[in-house]
Amino acid sequence: MTRGAFITVEGTEGVGKSTCLSALDTALRDSGHRVVVTREPGGTALGERVRDLILDEHDGGLSGEIEALLLFAARARHLERVIAPALADGKWVVCDRFTDATHAYQGGGRGVDRRWLESLARIVHEGLEPDLTLLLDAPVEVGLRRIRGREHDRFEKEHTDFFSRVRAAYLDIAERAPHRVRRIDADRSVDAVNGDLLAVLREFTARFEGAGK
Amino acid sequence: MTRGAFITVEGTEGVGKSTCLSALDTALRDSGHRVVVTREPGGTALGERVRDLILDEHDGGLSGEIEALLLFAARARHLERVIAPALADGKWVVCDRFTDATHAYQGGGRGVDRRWLESLARIVHEGLEPDLTLLLDAPVEVGLRRIRGREHDRFEKEHTDFFSRVRAAYLDIAERAPHRVRRIDADRSVDAVNGDLLAVLREFTARFEGAGK
Repeated sequence: MTRGAFITVEGTEGVGKSTCLSALDTALRDSGHRVVVTREPGGTALGERVRDLILDEHDGGLSGEIEALLLFAARARHLERVIAPALADGKWVVCDRFTDATHAYQGGGRGVDRRWLESLARIVHEGLEPDLTLLLDAPVEVGLRRIRGREHDRFEKEHTDFFSRVRAAYLDIAERAPHRVRRIDADRSVDAVNGDLLAVLREFTARFEGAGK
Repeated sequence: MTRGAFITVEGTEGVGKSTCLSALDTALRDSGHRVVVTREPGGTALGERVRDLILDEHDGGLSGEIEALLLFAARARHLERVIAPALADGKWVVCDRFTDATHAYQGGGRGVDRRWLESLARIVHEGLEPDLTLLLDAPVEVGLRRIRGREHDRFEKEHTDFFSRVRAAYLDIAERAPHRVRRIDADRSVDAVNGDLLAVLREFTARFEGAGK
């Protein structure tokens, strides 16, 4: 059996990731794929507890490095429990955030050294990279305007400057990994964004399934 | 100000670490040192939560690699919050378990690759090694007999085989790091063990403080 494709969706707050995940899920099922939609840092009981730990801001706030170590522990669990078995079973996995998010938030946003994060990524998931990453990109103010009114957690309370650094880190990743990352302009109507998403997905699917033959 | 010395105490269950920590604390205070006694994976609020997470065995048991990632997150916190500031302030830090324990339990006991653990240790505390490690060593059956009756947690419930691998890993560390690790035969009376401990401590203190002059 051919292993399934591993697709990640990335972007700052309010860019429309949830809508994108639903659209991908529907399109993939319609084309006959078995799909698992999951998210980081949740997706496992450990992931939820790590998420709570980080959001609690207990103990005076954790450094970016410690957040990254906790997130990679949750990621390792998520990989071994959810992602790897599904892929091996031929399912397609669509994941809301993955290691790029750690580079963007803890790296770009909080200043953790990129090479330090790359070392950590290497020891946790050497050899497993997403096959396709959809980066939903919009000016920070657009995203923040959209989430106004939603319940704010720690990350959403941080300043616009922070999100600008996160966005810049995401764009930097897209530039350095053009074989994998496709930037989608999210500052448009849902229909326009979905149209692009589905076009990228069709092209990717043809390439991925062609390569498996 | 000269930085303080970083002393760790290691060993399998029931070898008498608590008695050793008290003896070191008393001896160091008597000789005019300011001392901080702390323990891993506790020592910070994050450490306690990580400890609970690992002991809970929720979610079907964590792999040794994930335990190690969580333990290193707690260790990073412990270093930045407790150990590094105390050392910088000239205090002596006596710590119940440190990275050697991860090598012994997750490496020796659970089979996590040594080089993988070394990479993780390098990214978390490159440049900070204990100045002295006291390894309390006794046959596994002796330690297990001593803890019988104490409340058993997960680690204590594991088999004698497991603890034999942990002990072997500790002895391997002692062999590979003779400049730092002193093995103490713990299968003797408290007085005999303490006599050895204090002799090693006196010798170390003279060397450490001589080097600082």
